[in-house]
Amino acid sequence: MSYFGDLISTVFERRYRKALSDEVDGRTTSDLCEALLSSHGEVSGVTLARNLLDRYASMTGEEKATYFDFMTHKLEINSDDVIGTLQAYQNKPGKSTYRAFAAACEPKRQELARRLNQVPGATGQLVGMRKDLLGMLKERPDLEPLDVDFKHLFSSWFNRGFLVLRPINWESPADILDKIIAYEAVHAIDSWDDLRRRLKPSDRRCFGFFHPAMADEPLIFVEVALTKGIPDSVQDLLADDRTAIDAEDADTAVFYSISNCQAGLAGISFGNSLIKQVVTDLSKELPVLKTFVTLSPIPGMNRWLAGHYPELQKATDDQALAARYLLEAKRPDGMPLDPVARFHLGNGALVHAVHADADISENGRRQSNGTMVNYLYDLSQISQNHEQFVGEKTVVASDAVKTLSASVTLQA
Amino acid sequence: MSYFGDLISTVFERRYRKALSDEVDGRTTSDLCEALLSSHGEVSGVTLARNLLDRYASMTGEEKATYFDFMTHKLEINSDDVIGTLQAYQNKPGKSTYRAFAAACEPKRQELARRLNQVPGATGQLVGMRKDLLGMLKERPDLEPLDVDFKHLFSSWFNRGFLVLRPINWESPADILDKIIAYEAVHAIDSWDDLRRRLKPSDRRCFGFFHPAMADEPLIFVEVALTKGIPDSVQDLLADDRTAIDAEDADTAVFYSISNCQAGLAGISFGNSLIKQVVTDLSKELPVLKTFVTLSPIPGMNRWLAGHYPELQKATDDQALAARYLLEAKRPDGMPLDPVARFHLGNGALVHAVHADADISENGRRQSNGTMVNYLYDLSQISQNHEQFVGEKTVVASDAVKTLSASVTLQA
Amino acid sequence: MSYFGDLISTVFERRYRKALSDEVDGRTTSDLCEALLSSHGEVSGVTLARNLLDRYASMTGEEKATYFDFMTHKLEINSDDVIGTLQAYQNKPGKSTYRAFAAACEPKRQELARRLNQVPGATGQLVGMRKDLLGMLKERPDLEPLDVDFKHLFSSWFNRGFLVLRPINWESPADILDKIIAYEAVHAIDSWDDLRRRLKPSDRRCFGFFHPAMADEPLIFVEVALTKGIPDSVQDLLADDRTAIDAEDADTAVFYSISNCQAGLAGISFGNSLIKQVVTDLSKELPVLKTFVTLSPIPGMNRWLAGHYPELQKATDDQALAARYLLEAKRPDGMPLDPVARFHLGNGALVHAVHADADISENGRRQSNGTMVNYLYDLSQISQNHEQFVGEKTVVASDAVKTLSASVTLQA
Amino acid sequence: MSYFGDLISTVFERRYRKALSDEVDGRTTSDLCEALLSSHGEVSGVTLARNLLDRYASMTGEEKATYFDFMTHKLEINSDDVIGTLQAYQNKPGKSTYRAFAAACEPKRQELARRLNQVPGATGQLVGMRKDLLGMLKERPDLEPLDVDFKHLFSSWFNRGFLVLRPINWESPADILDKIIAYEAVHAIDSWDDLRRRLKPSDRRCFGFFHPAMADEPLIFVEVALTKGIPDSVQDLLADDRTAIDAEDADTAVFYSISNCQAGLAGISFGNSLIKQVVTDLSKELPVLKTFVTLSPIPGMNRWLAGHYPELQKATDDQALAARYLLEAKRPDGMPLDPVARFHLGNGALVHAVHADADISENGRRQSNGTMVNYLYDLSQISQNHEQFVGEKTVVASDAVKTLSASVTLQA
Repeated sequence: MSYFGDLISTVFERRYRKALSDEVDGRTTSDLCEALLSSHGEVSGVTLARNLLDRYASMTGEEKATYFDFMTHKLEINSDDVIGTLQAYQNKPGKSTYRAFAAACEPKRQELARRLNQVPGATGQLVGMRKDLLGMLKERPDLEPLDVDFKHLFSSWFNRGFLVLRPINWESPADILDKIIAYEAVHAIDSWDDLRRRLKPSDRRCFGFFHPAMADEPLIFVEVALTKGIPDSVQDLLADDRTAIDAEDADTAVFYSISNCQAGLAGISFGNSLIKQVVTDLSKELPVLKTFVTLSPIPGMNRWLAGHYPELQKATDDQALAARYLLEAKRPDGMPLDPVARFHLGNGALVHAVHADADISENGRRQSNGTMVNYLYDLSQISQNHEQFVGEKTVVASDAVKTLSASVTLQA
Repeated sequence: MSYFGDLISTVFERRYRKALSDEVDGRTTSDLCEALLSSHGEVSGVTLARNLLDRYASMTGEEKATYFDFMTHKLEINSDDVIGTLQAYQNKPGKSTYRAFAAACEPKRQELARRLNQVPGATGQLVGMRKDLLGMLKERPDLEPLDVDFKHLFSSWFNRGFLVLRPINWESPADILDKIIAYEAVHAIDSWDDLRRRLKPSDRRCFGFFHPAMADEPLIFVEVALTKGIPDSVQDLLADDRTAIDAEDADTAVFYSISNCQAGLAGISFGNSLIKQVVTDLSKELPVLKTFVTLSPIPGMNRWLAGHYPELQKATDDQALAARYLLEAKRPDGMPLDPVARFHLGNGALVHAVHADADISENGRRQSNGTMVNYLYDLSQISQNHEQFVGEKTVVASDAVKTLSASVTLQA
Repeated sequence: MSYFGDLISTVFERRYRKALSDEVDGRTTSDLCEALLSSHGEVSGVTLARNLLDRYASMTGEEKATYFDFMTHKLEINSDDVIGTLQAYQNKPGKSTYRAFAAACEPKRQELARRLNQVPGATGQLVGMRKDLLGMLKERPDLEPLDVDFKHLFSSWFNRGFLVLRPINWESPADILDKIIAYEAVHAIDSWDDLRRRLKPSDRRCFGFFHPAMADEPLIFVEVALTKGIPDSVQDLLADDRTAIDAEDADTAVFYSISNCQAGLAGISFGNSLIKQVVTDLSKELPVLKTFVTLSPIPGMNRWLAGHYPELQKATDDQALAARYLLEAKRPDGMPLDPVARFHLGNGALVHAVHADADISENGRRQSNGTMVNYLYDLSQISQNHEQFVGEKTVVASDAVKTLSASVTLQA
Repeated sequence: MSYFGDLISTVFERRYRKALSDEVDGRTTSDLCEALLSSHGEVSGVTLARNLLDRYASMTGEEKATYFDFMTHKLEINSDDVIGTLQAYQNKPGKSTYRAFAAACEPKRQELARRLNQVPGATGQLVGMRKDLLGMLKERPDLEPLDVDFKHLFSSWFNRGFLVLRPINWESPADILDKIIAYEAVHAIDSWDDLRRRLKPSDRRCFGFFHPAMADEPLIFVEVALTKGIPDSVQDLLADDRTAIDAEDADTAVFYSISNCQAGLAGISFGNSLIKQVVTDLSKELPVLKTFVTLSPIPGMNRWLAGHYPELQKATDDQALAARYLLEAKRPDGMPLDPVARFHLGNGALVHAVHADADISENGRRQSNGTMVNYLYDLSQISQNHEQFVGEKTVVASDAVKTLSASVTLQA
C-alpha cells in the first residue's frame, strides 16, 4: 500500500524534477499555481504540483495564510461571468453553454486542489492543508469560502463508496497502531501494553475506515468489546487483569470508543457508516452476537446540571439525573443537548440504559458524575427510530430509562 | 479487492433491504431519487441508493432515457437561486452565503450521483450509466448537461492521485485478462494462446491503471515489448514463432498498443500519465533500458491521401508519404490531423522514424499502406517538445523523418 | 509468490555464479555431488547445488540414468558401518553413538537431495527428478531404492501441516489455471471457455493444495458443484447452457472431479485431507449446506463384468450391476476392486446411490456403461465407516444400493 | 498467513473433535501415540494428533519427561530388525527390502513427529517441544537420541529452500515486532520507542527468515545500519539523537546485530544464508552500496586475557589486544576461540578492523574492554577466504589488523 511512496525517488522523476526545479525555483507560489492551472497537458503538471506541495510543507504559518489568501481571493469566482454564462445557458441550453456556466460557478481553487492531487500521496497533504486552514478561520473568517470548497471536494473524494473498512488488530502494521494510540479520543491509550490489551485478546475488535489514497492513515476507528450481557462500567471493561472470553461465547458487541482521526476532514461524517458496516461484519463473523450496543460517555451532563440545577449536582441519584438529561435537555432547535446522544440517536439507536459509577476516571467524574449510557442498535428498529428522531425529534428510550427520568424531581 | 462484493449479501443488509423494499417497491424512481436526496442521515440512504441502482440495472433503454430526462431537467439548477445567492454572497462574503451560492450553482443531479456512489460497487455502475447516456446524446442532445456533470464528477473521482498502476501478466487474475482480450483496441487478441504470447515471455510487459473502487476493471492499459534496437514491424514483434530475449539484454521498451477500456470515462485522459508511470517503473526495474519508443499506427494517412492526393496513394515510397503526412497534414486549428500523432506529440514525444511494410495486416494496409511510426519519448526533451507543440504547434521530428518528408513531391 | 525467482538474477548471485562456474565447468557431475556433500559451510554449497540442478535440467535421458545410477549405487549405505555403529550404540547409547548410527543408516543420496533443495525453487525440480526416475523403474528396477528415498523425503516435506488450501477461481492467476486445464484427469477441460464455466458461476467452487515452495503448482485439486439435491448426471452438471443457482440456495456440495497434479509425488496421498478441508471451509462459508457427496466414475466396472460375467455386460439394469460391482467385487486382499471406491470408502464415505446414464461420454460408456456413483461424506459417520472399512473391510452402503445389488442375478 | 489458525474452530472440526474426545479422554498418552502411529488413513489421525498436542501443551515438566522417555525408549529401533532387514536387502537389493531396512533403521518417534505435524500450526509446537527437551538433557542424557531425531527432522523441514526472507520494519505486524523486542540478543531493545528508532529511519533495515508453517515467528533476524563509511562505535550507531541519512547516500551496510529466535532450532544454522540473502537483496535495492561489513562484539576477549595474560587486561592498547586475540587465540582444534569470529570467518568474511571504545556499555566493557570488530564480507574473496579458513584454519585479516596484532608484546 506504500506503493506510490517508492516511486517518488525514481530515476525518471529525479531527472525530471531536477530539470524543472531549476526553472521553477525563482518563481512565486502564486505564479506556480497559475502555471499549474494553465498547464494544457499533464507533462509538467505533476512536477509543478509536487513542487507546490513541497513548498507548502516548508511554509511558516504566515506564508500559509498568504497562500490561503491567494486561493480565496485571487482564485475566486467572477460574478459577471456567472451571470453571463447563466444567461447564455438559459437562452440556449446545451453542452457548451452549460459547461461554461459550470466553469464560471466553480472557483479555480477547486481545480487547483484537483491538480495538486495528481501527485501520489497528495490527498493526505491536502487534508492537512485544510487542517491548517481550519486553525486560522477564527482570525481570518474571510478565508471561509476556501474551507467550503475544501469540504465540498473532500465530501466527494471521501464518499462512502471509496472507503475501505479494515480490521485493526495486533497483526496490524506498527505505523498504523502508532496512529491509533495518537488518535484515541475517548479513553486514552497510555502505552503499547495498553494498546495490546485493547487489540490482542480474543474478545476485542477494532475497525477503521481507510481511503486507498491515504492507506496508512485511519479516518475513523471504533473499538469493540465482545461480552456476555451489556456492560455497565468502562473500568471493568478495560481492567488490566480481566480474563478474556472466547469470541464465540459472547452475545453482545459493545462499541466503547469511536474516534475521528483527521482534523482536516471535519464535518464529513463517517461514524454512522462505520457502525453499520461493523455490525454487518461482526454479524457475519460471529452469528451468535445478538446485541449491538454502545457504552458511551455523557459529556454535557454536568455542565447542564451546573447551569440549570446547581443544587442537584451532588445528589446521589446520578442514574436518574443522567436519564433526565438525556431525555429532556434540548438545544434551541429541539435536538438533544448532548452531542454523543445526537450522534447515536441520529443513527437510529435508542437510549437503552444508564449506569452510575460507570466511568470513575477523573474525566468521567467531571463530565457526568461517573455515569455512562448504553445506546442500543436494534436492527429491526433503526429505520423507524431514525425517522422519529429526525422528523419529530423524539428521543426513543427504553421504559427503564423513561421511568428513571420521571423519578427525579427537578427544582430550578 | 473484491472485498465489498462479499458484504452485499450479509445478514444485516438482507434484513434491512427486505424491510425497506416492501416500503419502496411501489414508489416511482423519481420519487426514490427525491427521497435519497432528502435523506438526512445515511441510515436509509445506502439502501435507497442500492434500490435505485438495482432498478437502473433492469431498465429498458426507454426507461433509462426517462430517468436521464428526470436527472437533466428536474434536478436542474434554478437560475433565480443562482442570482439570488450570488448577490447575497457579494453583499456579505462568508461561509453561509458562499455555501448557499455553491449549492445553488450545482444541480442536484451531482449530489444524487454522489449519494448513489455510497453503495459499494456503485462507481462502476455510474460509469456504465454515463456510457448509456453517451449512446443517447445524438438523439437526445438536451441531455448533454447531464453528461457535463458526469464528466465533472468522474474527473474528480478518477484523478491521477487515486489511480494505481498495476502490472498485468500471466500471473494476473483470469477475470482481468478476460477484459484485456475484450478491450484491446489496436492489435486484436484472438485467443488465450495469443494473450499468453503477449504477457508471458520474459521480454513482454503490460501495465494498466486501476481505480480502487473498480478493482477488477482496467481503465487503460499499455502493452510493451522489450527489444534490442527499435523495431520496424509489428508482425515481427508479435510473431508466433519469435524467440524471446532476456529482459536484461534489452535496450529498448516499445509501447506497441494503448487501449482505453471504459466508454463511460470518455474524455478523461489517462494515457499520458500511464506512459510516464510505465517509463518510471521500467527504468527502475531495468536500468539497462535506454530508449522508450512507440510502434504506432498512422490511422488517418490513407484517408488524407485519398482526399488530397489520390494519385499518390499507390506510390511506392510509402515511407516518405507517411513522413509527409505526419509533419504536414493539419487540422484547421493547426494541430496534426492524425489523432495518434496528436496524443504522443502532446505528451512531449517526437516523430523518430517511419517504416514501410510495418503493419501488413488488412487494417494496416487500409489505413496507411502498411506504414507505422515510432514516437520517441526522450526524457531530456519531453518538456520542451511539449511546450513547442502546445505553444507553437511545432511537430518535432528527427532529421531522418524531416528528410523523408522533404523528399516527396506532392501535386494536388 | 514468485519472490525467489526474482533473486536468481541478482548482482550478487551473478558475480558469484560466474566465479564458480569457471571453476566448476570442467568437473564431472558425480564430482560436484561429492563436493556438495562435503562442503562444510554453505558458502559455495548453494552455488554447487544450483549448478547441479542446471546440469540436470539439460541432461538427456541417458545422462539422467547415469546420474540416478550414481545416486543409487555410489551414494549407498555401507553395511559394515551400519552394523558397526549399531553395536557401538547398543554398547553405549548416547548422542554421538546414535548420531553415528543414524548417519550410517541413511544413504548420502538423501543428504544430497536436501542440499540440492537449498536452492530457491529446487523443490519443484526435485519432484520433477522423481518423475523422471519413476519413468525408468520398469527398465531399471535396480534404481528402486533411490525412489524409496525420494518418497521418504517428500512425505516429510509435503506433510499435511505444510500444505495450504487455496480456492481456485476466475480471479486466480492464469498460470495456475493453465495447469488446471492440463491436470484435470476426470472430465477433461477443453478450452478456457470450458474452464470459465467450471470456475466462474456462483454455484461452482474449486480448491487445491499448494506447497509454499512450489507456490504456482497445485498438488491436487477438487472441483465442486453446489446444487439443490444430489445430482445423477455429470453431463447435466456440466451442461453449457445450464442456469447457475445462488450459492446460498444450494443444500448440497458435489465433488465431481479430483485430480492429482504431480507425477513426482506419486504415492503421497493428499485426497483425504483435501476433501476434509474443503468440507470444513465450505461449511464455514455456506452454513446452509447439508450434504457433501461425490459424483464419481466407476472405472473398473466393465473390465470386471467382461472378466467375470461377459454375458451381463449388455444387460439393461446397469444400475443394479454397478451396485453389485461396488459392493461385491474385491481384490485378493478383500478390499474393493474399484480404485475410486477404495479411496472414498477409505476416507470414511459410504456408497449412497448409483445412477444409470450418468456419464454418457464415450469414456463413461466404455468403463461403466454410463453409470456413476455418489459417495456420501456424512460427518457423523465418517469415523466409524472408516474403522469398519479398514478393520473389517466392510463396504458401507445405503439400503437402496444394497437392495439394487441384491436384485441382480449373476451367473458366472 | 494466519489462515490455518482460523480453521481450528470450524463447525466440522468442532463436531469431529467432540466426538473423538469423548472416546479419547480416558486413554493414556502413550496409547494415543500408538494409535496415531497405527492409524491407516488420515481420518482420525489429525484429530488424534491435535489431541496429543493439546495434552502436551498442558503437561507439567515431569509429565513431559515421561512423554520424552516414552518417545526415546519405547519408540526406539529394534536392532534385530535392523540387522535382519539389512541382510535381506544385501541378499536381494530392491524396493521392498530397502523399504524394510529404511523402516527398521528409523525409530518410530520420527514418524510420530511427522504425524503430529499434520495438524495446522503443529510445527511451532514441535519446535517448542524440542526446546523443552533441550532443557532436560543435562539431567536426562538418556534422552539425547530423541534430540538427534528432532534435529534431523528439523534440518529437513527448515531447509534453506523452504525459508522466506522478509523485511521487518515499522509497517510489520505488531505481533512480529513484539518478538523482535523479545529475541534481540546482542544490543537489547528496551521499549517500543527504541524499536522504532531501529526500524523506522530511512537508513535502517531489518530482515528475518520465516518458515511458512510458522508465519508469525521469525527464526533469525539481522539488524542493518546504512552508513557513510565503516562505523567504529555501536553507541554512535544507535544514538537516540542521531540524524538519519538518505538510504541512497549510504555506501556501507553494517550488520550490527544477528539474533537467533528459536531455542528449539538450536544447531540448525541460518546465519550464513541470512547474511548472503540480505547482501543480495540490499545490492538489488541500493546498487550504491559498496561495502558489507559487521560491527561485532568480541565476547571471549577478556575471559581469554584473564586466563592467559591477567596483567595485560588493564593495558591501554585495547585495540592491539583485540587484534591479537582474534588472530591468535585458538581452540585445541585450531579454530578461533571467539565464537563470533568463528561464525563470520566460517562464512568467508575477514577481520577488517578493530576499534577501542566501540561498545562502552557495561556488557561491552566487561567482555572486551569496549572493543569491537568489523568483519568484512568482500564478495570477490568470500569463497577463497572460506576455503582457507576451513581447510587451513587461516584467519584472514587486513594488514592493519595484522600490524596491530604484531605490535603487542605478550608475556605470559
